[in-house]
Amino acid sequence: MKITLAQLDFQNGFFERNTEKIILAIREAEALEADLVVFPELAIGGTPANDFLEYDSFGEQCSQSLKQIADACEKTACIIGIPSPVEADNKRFFNSAAFCHAGEVRFFHKHQLKNTDLFDESRHFDCSDESSVLHFKGIKFFVLIGEGLVDHIALDEEFLLREIEKHQPQFILNIAASPFHASRAAERQESLQKIALKTGLPFIFLNQTGAQTDILFDGGSLVFDDKGQLAHRLPFFAEAIETIDLSILRQGFVMTNDALPDEIVLIHDALVMGIRDYFVKQGFSRALLGLSGGLDSAVTMALAVSALGAQNVTGLLMPSAYSTPHSITDALDLARNLGTPTETIEIAPLFDAFINELQPVFRNKPADVTEENIQARIRGVLLMAVSNKFGSILLNTSNKSEIAVGYGTLYGDMNGGLAVLGDVYKTQVYALAHYINREKEIIPLHTITKPPSAELRPDQKDSDSLPDYNILDQILFHHIELQKGAAEIIREGFDATTVAKVLRLVSLNEYKRKQAAPVLRVSSKAFGAGRRMPIGSKFIP
Amino acid sequence: MKITLAQLDFQNGFFERNTEKIILAIREAEALEADLVVFPELAIGGTPANDFLEYDSFGEQCSQSLKQIADACEKTACIIGIPSPVEADNKRFFNSAAFCHAGEVRFFHKHQLKNTDLFDESRHFDCSDESSVLHFKGIKFFVLIGEGLVDHIALDEEFLLREIEKHQPQFILNIAASPFHASRAAERQESLQKIALKTGLPFIFLNQTGAQTDILFDGGSLVFDDKGQLAHRLPFFAEAIETIDLSILRQGFVMTNDALPDEIVLIHDALVMGIRDYFVKQGFSRALLGLSGGLDSAVTMALAVSALGAQNVTGLLMPSAYSTPHSITDALDLARNLGTPTETIEIAPLFDAFINELQPVFRNKPADVTEENIQARIRGVLLMAVSNKFGSILLNTSNKSEIAVGYGTLYGDMNGGLAVLGDVYKTQVYALAHYINREKEIIPLHTITKPPSAELRPDQKDSDSLPDYNILDQILFHHIELQKGAAEIIREGFDATTVAKVLRLVSLNEYKRKQAAPVLRVSSKAFGAGRRMPIGSKFIP
Repeated sequence: MKITLAQLDFQNGFFERNTEKIILAIREAEALEADLVVFPELAIGGTPANDFLEYDSFGEQCSQSLKQIADACEKTACIIGIPSPVEADNKRFFNSAAFCHAGEVRFFHKHQLKNTDLFDESRHFDCSDESSVLHFKGIKFFVLIGEGLVDHIALDEEFLLREIEKHQPQFILNIAASPFHASRAAERQESLQKIALKTGLPFIFLNQTGAQTDILFDGGSLVFDDKGQLAHRLPFFAEAIETIDLSILRQGFVMTNDALPDEIVLIHDALVMGIRDYFVKQGFSRALLGLSGGLDSAVTMALAVSALGAQNVTGLLMPSAYSTPHSITDALDLARNLGTPTETIEIAPLFDAFINELQPVFRNKPADVTEENIQARIRGVLLMAVSNKFGSILLNTSNKSEIAVGYGTLYGDMNGGLAVLGDVYKTQVYALAHYINREKEIIPLHTITKPPSAELRPDQKDSDSLPDYNILDQILFHHIELQKGAAEIIREGFDATTVAKVLRLVSLNEYKRKQAAPVLRVSSKAFGAGRRMPIGSKFIP
Repeated sequence: MKITLAQLDFQNGFFERNTEKIILAIREAEALEADLVVFPELAIGGTPANDFLEYDSFGEQCSQSLKQIADACEKTACIIGIPSPVEADNKRFFNSAAFCHAGEVRFFHKHQLKNTDLFDESRHFDCSDESSVLHFKGIKFFVLIGEGLVDHIALDEEFLLREIEKHQPQFILNIAASPFHASRAAERQESLQKIALKTGLPFIFLNQTGAQTDILFDGGSLVFDDKGQLAHRLPFFAEAIETIDLSILRQGFVMTNDALPDEIVLIHDALVMGIRDYFVKQGFSRALLGLSGGLDSAVTMALAVSALGAQNVTGLLMPSAYSTPHSITDALDLARNLGTPTETIEIAPLFDAFINELQPVFRNKPADVTEENIQARIRGVLLMAVSNKFGSILLNTSNKSEIAVGYGTLYGDMNGGLAVLGDVYKTQVYALAHYINREKEIIPLHTITKPPSAELRPDQKDSDSLPDYNILDQILFHHIELQKGAAEIIREGFDATTVAKVLRLVSLNEYKRKQAAPVLRVSSKAFGAGRRMPIGSKFIP
């Protein structure tokens, strides 16, 4: 039996294009005389559809798409993810796999819903205990939906083993919409390999690819043979339609032993895809960003150029009285290396105008962080003005370390439609810079080697008010990704005062993050939907 | 038996103060010789605690608080809401009611979790099928957690009826953290009255009060007698500790027939509480807002004065070349009526400075919405500067109608720590203005009667680009609160072109709302946590 794996990128709620793409894949599979083509979880409708599911028209359009798709499955059958209504008259759904063949449509439902991190499946979905075994052309497939086995969800594994005992399926078909984070590909491969080994059944794990705003699906679909050996892996961050012969998977014939790419390479490629898809799906082609001569804007610029092309990315230099001369030369060197256009606007006259207008209100109050924020906000106004005038999207360049501790100005340098590095710690930004420079110097070396500074007052350095990034990032990682509190982090050997200060800043600045741009998610715990913290609380976890 | 109802306001994660408050209430009940004091759902820890629950220290501090509370229950028993760990070694909880008396601590767990609108209980909680009947001093209480019966959750009602059949409890004790929206008090009263009538059991519904940022708990706890008649209602939007004798509830003696306040009165009081609690819980006393002479800023100012006192609310006037003379006189009249200080900064010089600096980049591009946005953003910078310099919180004055259709500038008039009117349609803002003026003219009549305008270009009126607010608000209500799509709304008699335009604007501007200030929730479907829509989708529900 030949199975076509359609690892595709869907756009939430873009029924017309998604359906067209699905039907094209079915035709392609048919041309190859495939028996079955498999699409990812929630391919119809897209995911996360969130509260779209509360509108009747969403469910109706899903059903209409499925009809069109089923009509195309006269010869080649398909299995495709779809929200299927629990009853005709309410707004609850199953997260289902629809099997379509020669006029027949059968549903298999998700067994165990996911309500962690990014997912709130119980908000719209019900789970099901029905059997998930499909008989097709003399072969029994166990059809599983979601990434529960990757997460070692006991209930999913028990369900699988029970079904194996009861129905003796010969293959496991697992369709998923499994978001990327840096170690996710390795986790998937390891967890699923164990299941394949344990069950002795060939195992296909089919993932989505493409970005839905902040959530990145990395593809990298997996095929294991009946010895639990990795037989095939589809590409990361790209659509792919590939056809395999099931018989090969029962011969213990290892077709691949490709090593996984380094995490920093995966993060790089994830961010490039995230930028590109955000623009494509919003219907924009041009990006703008503020170029400070610093590392974050340089790396963001290089990623944007990879995603959109050099001519579509404009850098705006906005030096102030506190900018060092190398800020400008470093920024211009970067733009020259990348071949991107730049513009320059001095902010000193605007800053003076604000100070002058505010003087009657401020009276003789001494200068403080207010004046630093005014500079950042003037830049914010300029960036939005240029972005509005030329129809481009402003990219935010803040990194995860500074977003975590609130080292940024709301409505200033926190502006932007998309925070490219918002889930990348400063120390990882350095690693990205080195990776970007792997063949030649794109990011000027001086940008990498100089001490980081916001340049909002004379001789300012990040290290004046923050711990060294090597320390800061480790504390933040323990607190955010590993969800450890102060006592546990201090036990790891970090200085108690520093830990207390960092955790206090993370808590205090929750209110800023509530108004931050969507953050491309590349870690297991990103700011945004994955991390929901109350604001204005006295509790510091 | 005497039961004390402790309708209190808790602050998420402020264990020290919450515990102190709880123990004080126990002492007060004890002094009145009450047998039992009842606290709301999730009183310990506060709600929504969200991802605080993923940190071990949160659960540990909950347990510590419970120990202290249990120690105080030597004489008078208590029932109190708390997240209680499912097992010692994982991060899952039950949403529980702890019964504490004379060294004994027993838990009753929530039966049916809530995963709609604001709630994601399955993210951290497990549900339980254990019996919920408490035997105390010869009386059997059915202990129910949450507002499931208000929402007609069938599983909650079935559980209740099954438990009644099995254990014959004599009273229903329902502890809740039931958020406010305009019709919620009426819904609670109606739904619970039916249950009381159906079961023939006296029914106590104890609610939280106080605001957790955007979520407002209105109190208004209810007591029904065994004839299903409303015996008592605790105040709205205020803490209250009241003691009742259970015997009275078995005599069919109706103690109250207070009518519910009008919805606009409830909304008014909810907003005042929301502002006050936001400031108190964040540790701020002073507010700032931009005073345009228009209705939204005037109503926001009046609400802020009720919440914080006139001397704590400053209005900043920022007239431009397009401001009409009455903008200033109306704003100053309002400030005089309220007794609030004002400051005035002209934005023309700043606008000219920006245009001048941007000219080399803009070249000869014609003026468009960019220039309007620059004005709004200059005001945003000024407001944040004054707010930073004087340690006040900027209140956002946008209403729900304009937030819905994106009639506002991101990083401009969308700035602020809290969106006071963000869940109040423009037509409701008028109603609030009339209510505020019920005794004397506080909001200048001219502010109420003049046509709304953003005054960002000459002779601009909201009606130039938006349908009349009477029409717009109805379309929005059908779409947002009633979750109807275009076809259904048109069937209600609205113009098809207008509906299509409005729904397109709502969809298109989802990205702005992702970066908006928290919105005080007063409707059944507010922007923010309650309405989660993907951005950058082609689907218009």
